[in-house]
Amino acid sequence: LCLCWALGPAAASAPPNILLLLMDDMGWGDLGVFGEPSKETPNLDQMASEGMLFLDFYTANPLCSPSRAALLTGRLPVRNGFYTTNAHARNAYTPQDIVGGIPDSELLLPELLKKAGYTNKIIGKWHLGHRPQFHPMKHGFDEWFGSPNCHFGPFDNRALPNIPVYRDWEMIGRYYEDFKIDLKTGEANLTQIYLQEALDFISKQQASQQPFFLYWAIDATHAPVYASKHFLGTSQRGLYGDAVREIDDSIGKILKHLQKLGISENTFVFFTSDNGAALISAPKQGGSNGRFLCGKQTTFEGGMREPAIAWWPGHIPAGGVSHQLGNVMDLFTTSLSLAGLQPPGDRQIDGIDLLPAILQGKLIDRPIFYYRGNEMMAVRVGLYKAHYWTWSNSWEEYSKGVDFCPGQNVSGVTTHTQEEHTTLPLLFHLGRDPGEKYPLSFASDEYQRAMEQISVVVQQHKATMVPGEPQLNVCDKAVMNWSPPGCEKLGKCLKQPKSDPKKCIWPH
Amino acid sequence: LCLCWALGPAAASAPPNILLLLMDDMGWGDLGVFGEPSKETPNLDQMASEGMLFLDFYTANPLCSPSRAALLTGRLPVRNGFYTTNAHARNAYTPQDIVGGIPDSELLLPELLKKAGYTNKIIGKWHLGHRPQFHPMKHGFDEWFGSPNCHFGPFDNRALPNIPVYRDWEMIGRYYEDFKIDLKTGEANLTQIYLQEALDFISKQQASQQPFFLYWAIDATHAPVYASKHFLGTSQRGLYGDAVREIDDSIGKILKHLQKLGISENTFVFFTSDNGAALISAPKQGGSNGRFLCGKQTTFEGGMREPAIAWWPGHIPAGGVSHQLGNVMDLFTTSLSLAGLQPPGDRQIDGIDLLPAILQGKLIDRPIFYYRGNEMMAVRVGLYKAHYWTWSNSWEEYSKGVDFCPGQNVSGVTTHTQEEHTTLPLLFHLGRDPGEKYPLSFASDEYQRAMEQISVVVQQHKATMVPGEPQLNVCDKAVMNWSPPGCEKLGKCLKQPKSDPKKCIWPH
Repeated sequence: LCLCWALGPAAASAPPNILLLLMDDMGWGDLGVFGEPSKETPNLDQMASEGMLFLDFYTANPLCSPSRAALLTGRLPVRNGFYTTNAHARNAYTPQDIVGGIPDSELLLPELLKKAGYTNKIIGKWHLGHRPQFHPMKHGFDEWFGSPNCHFGPFDNRALPNIPVYRDWEMIGRYYEDFKIDLKTGEANLTQIYLQEALDFISKQQASQQPFFLYWAIDATHAPVYASKHFLGTSQRGLYGDAVREIDDSIGKILKHLQKLGISENTFVFFTSDNGAALISAPKQGGSNGRFLCGKQTTFEGGMREPAIAWWPGHIPAGGVSHQLGNVMDLFTTSLSLAGLQPPGDRQIDGIDLLPAILQGKLIDRPIFYYRGNEMMAVRVGLYKAHYWTWSNSWEEYSKGVDFCPGQNVSGVTTHTQEEHTTLPLLFHLGRDPGEKYPLSFASDEYQRAMEQISVVVQQHKATMVPGEPQLNVCDKAVMNWSPPGCEKLGKCLKQPKSDPKKCIWPH
Repeated sequence: LCLCWALGPAAASAPPNILLLLMDDMGWGDLGVFGEPSKETPNLDQMASEGMLFLDFYTANPLCSPSRAALLTGRLPVRNGFYTTNAHARNAYTPQDIVGGIPDSELLLPELLKKAGYTNKIIGKWHLGHRPQFHPMKHGFDEWFGSPNCHFGPFDNRALPNIPVYRDWEMIGRYYEDFKIDLKTGEANLTQIYLQEALDFISKQQASQQPFFLYWAIDATHAPVYASKHFLGTSQRGLYGDAVREIDDSIGKILKHLQKLGISENTFVFFTSDNGAALISAPKQGGSNGRFLCGKQTTFEGGMREPAIAWWPGHIPAGGVSHQLGNVMDLFTTSLSLAGLQPPGDRQIDGIDLLPAILQGKLIDRPIFYYRGNEMMAVRVGLYKAHYWTWSNSWEEYSKGVDFCPGQNVSGVTTHTQEEHTTLPLLFHLGRDPGEKYPLSFASDEYQRAMEQISVVVQQHKATMVPGEPQLNVCDKAVMNWSPPGCEKLGKCLKQPKSDPKKCIWPH
């Protein structure tokens, strides 16, 4: 294989292709290389051994939509509008009745890459708004195969329409009608379809000699979890593991395809996930955050630390391990850097260029902010993490069985009331205590020293913060996917109810 | 390196050297290759990539002494006498006032290997009794450097003597007097001494052309945790991580030494630990069991699943991963097999020969029994684990701050009263639920099917169980290390108090 790569086209002048493999609700602990005890991800483990493993990589938000908006804009959700002010410190996303979506004023990665001659495709879940003005092809993508929302359902097409699947501008069917997911067996062949879409697009682009940006945002590990027949029952981990195995196999095929086409040395590949594993759905429909605390929806490590691997043979040294604090927003700035572009100068960009970390093993000093809605719940500076607010979820939700920290209970930390610690933050050393179980003593010198440093970072952050217009406040049944473009051709247009805009309810 | 090995002596006829690297209180999650987020064990990670990683390897008991007695006899502690009947389901070990130790009737691995011409050395902690009749050189070892007990202290030499350090038959000093451990800084150079002992012994044996069995039972990761000056402050994980880094570095040096001497292809090396990480001492003095439940002292996975790596270049395929259910007792039988010997036929041996799993990738069907004292608390058959008794520790101990499951709480599972489930065992699927959080429904078909299979295994086990005479029932201050052999030469003999034998108190 080494020989193959060495003989591939060098293309020193042309910018590299960019391939982002974004998982849905996959946790830090779901890969063999991150210690999953079944160790069933040979292709991802190999990707890591050929590339660079990031151990301290984060999402910008513990929920899908804001995380994805952050990735594509390089900006915190509180800046790009992907948050709510309906209640304090709430996670919000883009269900079918959401009125908002990605504002036109935001500059998305594909819009910018176009200027450098890239062809941009999104395969899979968009989640930045499903109304016409939010369509991914209005925001820089040239092609789309996938869905604007989660693959929830089936719905009755009266109270709720089934979710549409798009090819480019128009819908080509709906989940559970034309794109089947068998909720009983967990069978669906969607990952195979997404894989084929990726292979075809890569082949087409390679033939056209144009650089590409492929955003492969698949969703088999998001409840309802699914796998195709060939993979069902193959994992020790049950259905969730079957889904992971199919994804692992697919990623192996994509990387081999790049190698076979001789473009692996000219394709920067990055693998990560949108937020922590959904422990509410575990074990059958949810993954693992390893030894980290809690999961999706929370600002503990389990909610926001992500598996991450960079792969670019001939450029990234094999077997690298990085403790660079990284964030999905960095994929925006790093991709621009790869394309020879500067990030927009007219707005605050939170993502940094990771290339010095990836190519030269540098460690860039930068904080990680953990938000819920427009509240900065916590911040990480170096190995220290300070919680200014703690909350898992409300007693009311918890008493209904909604548990974001099953089997875990750290007194005063995994609180079911919103606890403010802004005057005396809870401080953890994530090296000695990655599980956030042992807050440092307020009286210790270490606490004083660390908080002095952290306070400066937080003050600076807050002083310069200009929140964007919140997009996730208003819900309306009328905006659901009743009649997406293309529905007429399929005879799948549904009757839209009368508009009745309301404040969305965000319980978490 | 590949060339080096290929040019090394083949020695097809001579039995291979056997090197057991036994860690003390190191947990499954403490190595990079098992997902420790700091990933600070490059040598052990490389050992795994050159050898075979065992993901489902267990100890025979969640406490040091019984685990070590099981390893060296190939027999469950309940058979070899390393248990107590003073109270129900209690862990017991060999503190200074223990009267018992390894019975002469037990056949130890080094005794048997002698017959095949092996020279046997133990470096580090013995823990099978410290009275003269239990001396390791009375049980098959030819050389010893180390201690009979844990390195607790310092003591005042009145109520308690400081623990002696032996070279062969005689003590050459005591901890905190001649072998310093600085409890304030955590500094001690013991791992360096143990390393040098290993390198010297290996060199000597290589020169003498005699096969060796080296049992390297070091203890830097057991509280009080220590590291030598060069390693202090080098880990993200604090002092515990410093100790792990020094051990990792030492093991790297030992493996390189074998390669340099050209005997790596003729030396079978196995790395594992005696029990789960001591979470009561975490984070400063205790390690990590990854995502497994609880730790040392318990029969949950965190207490008994161990990191394990087999390494034997030219014999074990590089990068192997095994789900073979293994146990420290297998190291007895496997070592005999390597030496061309049969296990004793006059007694029940619980260890199995792992060579088919290691060399041919076979999966051998066998259960794992989880004992506390003479009570079988749980059993694993395939991916199912049935708990017949659950107990973390008593409310009384827990209220004093002794917590074997910090930050973890699984209702009805991590119980603080001894809960009997013998008529309806709690059943977990460790593939889907390695963290033992979601007991299977008693009414499910899966429960019925699995329990039918497990019940047969348990009935068979219990029907043929003949417990040995319990060795860990009686304690007496008179038997402490007051005047070990050699104390006269050093002027370090202490006055022995009057004999006053009592039932030992085992609270856990």
